[in-house]
Amino acid sequence: MNAETPPGDILDRLSATLAARRGADPETSYAAKLLARGPDAILKKIGEEVAELIMASKDGQATEIVFEAADVLFHVMTLLAFHGLSIEDVRRELARREGTSGIAEKRARQAK
Amino acid sequence: MNAETPPGDILDRLSATLAARRGADPETSYAAKLLARGPDAILKKIGEEVAELIMASKDGQATEIVFEAADVLFHVMTLLAFHGLSIEDVRRELARREGTSGIAEKRARQAK
Amino acid sequence: MNAETPPGDILDRLSATLAARRGADPETSYAAKLLARGPDAILKKIGEEVAELIMASKDGQATEIVFEAADVLFHVMTLLAFHGLSIEDVRRELARREGTSGIAEKRARQAK
Amino acid sequence: MNAETPPGDILDRLSATLAARRGADPETSYAAKLLARGPDAILKKIGEEVAELIMASKDGQATEIVFEAADVLFHVMTLLAFHGLSIEDVRRELARREGTSGIAEKRARQAK
Repeated sequence: MNAETPPGDILDRLSATLAARRGADPETSYAAKLLARGPDAILKKIGEEVAELIMASKDGQATEIVFEAADVLFHVMTLLAFHGLSIEDVRRELARREGTSGIAEKRARQAK
Repeated sequence: MNAETPPGDILDRLSATLAARRGADPETSYAAKLLARGPDAILKKIGEEVAELIMASKDGQATEIVFEAADVLFHVMTLLAFHGLSIEDVRRELARREGTSGIAEKRARQAK
Repeated sequence: MNAETPPGDILDRLSATLAARRGADPETSYAAKLLARGPDAILKKIGEEVAELIMASKDGQATEIVFEAADVLFHVMTLLAFHGLSIEDVRRELARREGTSGIAEKRARQAK
Repeated sequence: MNAETPPGDILDRLSATLAARRGADPETSYAAKLLARGPDAILKKIGEEVAELIMASKDGQATEIVFEAADVLFHVMTLLAFHGLSIEDVRRELARREGTSGIAEKRARQAK
């Protein structure tokens, strides 16, 4: 980050960037390339990144865990962007659950 | 969300809640139970939730995709909490990458 | 295994058992229950079991690695059974690749 | 497969091939390269291949499901080979469970 960093939450900035990458020239960025390759390519990367997050957690190095968690979140947000969704939709869902007690939520989850 | 909703970003509130769940009575909430069971239980849930996100993306229903993305993020944040980390650490990592061009980032990723 | 063990490869016996579990009373066995719940339930279990295999590999205990690899294979074979397929179809595919040199196979994989 | 195909089960032949690839020149085959890169590279591939199996199941094309199941099995066997294990160890574990009723096995699994 430097003086030119736009204001606001990085997650919202990233959501906006990813939304703008849809349909952009695949040669211009990693996200544009991934979005152009379609959802299966993004899902494959998510599978790979989650494997790396599991390994990082087992290795127990904080820097690696944060790095891999960021990779997972980046690719989940890329998937959301592909579907015309954003981190704000996920925030809204998490906020909706906020009132629900953990145990009630768990029961709802199990009934799924 | 209602009048009693605390201020601030839901992700920060959730990070704070998860941090407070570490060492709490496992019977009081789903997160406390999961944190008490340890990292392997959390990682197993992440594997399961990512499978569900992949399925939701293939099914193509926006509501389901958001629901499963929220589940993945919730469990990744629970893992971060277990390791004494938070969404703010992930934001900082994503912000650090913000200056990097997509293609440079991709090269760095491939060299990993 | 004992004197009553049926002859033949365990993988073929398991394939036959799983095929027979399709449509069977869900209360009679774990596989019948899983098959009755449908492919999404099986895929969720595969996601979970793979997370456990990754953890077992990181832990480095041979017994655990074999246990989790068996769990992954069991659930992949349950998925195959759901789709009317069997381990023999997978063997045929692996045999088909046998002639192909590793490097040629890799190129074909990357072109996928 | 042709007249030169060695006798025996393809899974045993593949296990033997993978065992022989450990320590072999990484340039000679895909498996030798993967084994030389170590367990994390193999686990990453397993995460990716499982994501592809989930997608193939959702797509419902038998040929694709078999192809991806073969990819998962190949990479799980590569992981086994890395740890000095083979498909025969997994067969033995599955045979051990054969006597156990499905429901008892499920209970044992839940107690894990």
